Amino acid sequence: MSRHFDKAEGLCEEKDSATDGFVFNQTMLRIADPTRSLDFYTRVMGMTLLKRLDFAEMRFSLYFLTAGEDFSDIADEPQQRIRQTFGRPAMLELTHNWDDTADNAVYHNGNSEPKGFGHIGFHVPDLDAACQRFERLDVPFQKKPDDGAMKGIAFIKDPDGYWIEIFDAAQVSAVCEPHLKS
Amino acid sequence: MSRHFDKAEGLCEEKDSATDGFVFNQTMLRIADPTRSLDFYTRVMGMTLLKRLDFAEMRFSLYFLTAGEDFSDIADEPQQRIRQTFGRPAMLELTHNWDDTADNAVYHNGNSEPKGFGHIGFHVPDLDAACQRFERLDVPFQKKPDDGAMKGIAFIKDPDGYWIEIFDAAQVSAVCEPHLKS
Repeated sequence: MSRHFDKAEGLCEEKDSATDGFVFNQTMLRIADPTRSLDFYTRVMGMTLLKRLDFAEMRFSLYFLTAGEDFSDIADEPQQRIRQTFGRPAMLELTHNWDDTADNAVYHNGNSEPKGFGHIGFHVPDLDAACQRFERLDVPFQKKPDDGAMKGIAFIKDPDGYWIEIFDAAQVSAVCEPHLKS
Repeated sequence: MSRHFDKAEGLCEEKDSATDGFVFNQTMLRIADPTRSLDFYTRVMGMTLLKRLDFAEMRFSLYFLTAGEDFSDIADEPQQRIRQTFGRPAMLELTHNWDDTADNAVYHNGNSEPKGFGHIGFHVPDLDAACQRFERLDVPFQKKPDDGAMKGIAFIKDPDGYWIEIFDAAQVSAVCEPHLKS
């Protein structure tokens, strides 16, 4: 039995035990204005700030946000909190270089040349309700659910212009059905 | 009591119940050669391919990888598998446009101008052991653990040149200690 759930060339079928316990912990994006971005990710996206780190001599700060709901284990003790933050999956790390502001810093979202990083993505329980709320909150859309060839998924933009794909895992399975590799 | 575990301007203190159930599901990176990238992410990083989707008419494929270890719930039924893939946290989504190859496509990793996306990051149980293994496997380093001002963290490069930060959550807490916001 393959340790993978789908087929593709290049897959390593025997897991190296040296990788046991590797955790995909974080995705780091640079931001121009932490007040603006923290408002967006906590108010609009519902994330929670788990840890902030300030590196004064290098003039930058890091903000670690999670969409996870179970915080029963999170410690007050700072060292333990850091261990928990860096050992946890699915953290969004926002980096603010102190000399950047919304007026002087424009970051590249990776979707025009030179391309690279594409987006982060959120599952939401109800795509239409979530998108109607984003509209009420004046969140800019890159793509509304009914736009284009890929119906049933949306892309909004965060305050720096990074794309956030929005989908409902149940609906997206219908979108993807014709593309299933049998 | 704040719903955040640290302080910063811009934080929304009252969580909007409309965001209940939002899951930070994915980080998407474009890749030039899926065989090369799947080998790297499954053999070197120990990830598992949970779902592949081919969009023939638009000439691209998506590969959804996870570092999670508990696959007891993953269904064989394709629609259910897609719902599980898109509803799960911490998926790495690799996008391959079929007309791209390692010879003709060079993606931008976001760490030179124009900057934006920075890196993805993995916790490993033992930083030194992990880095020695990466060296044996000829993985290129952007920064070894003892280089530079930030001791105890490393950056390796994936086959497209994207940076992957490598840290051990226990060690990194010592690195960060002087930068704790009291």
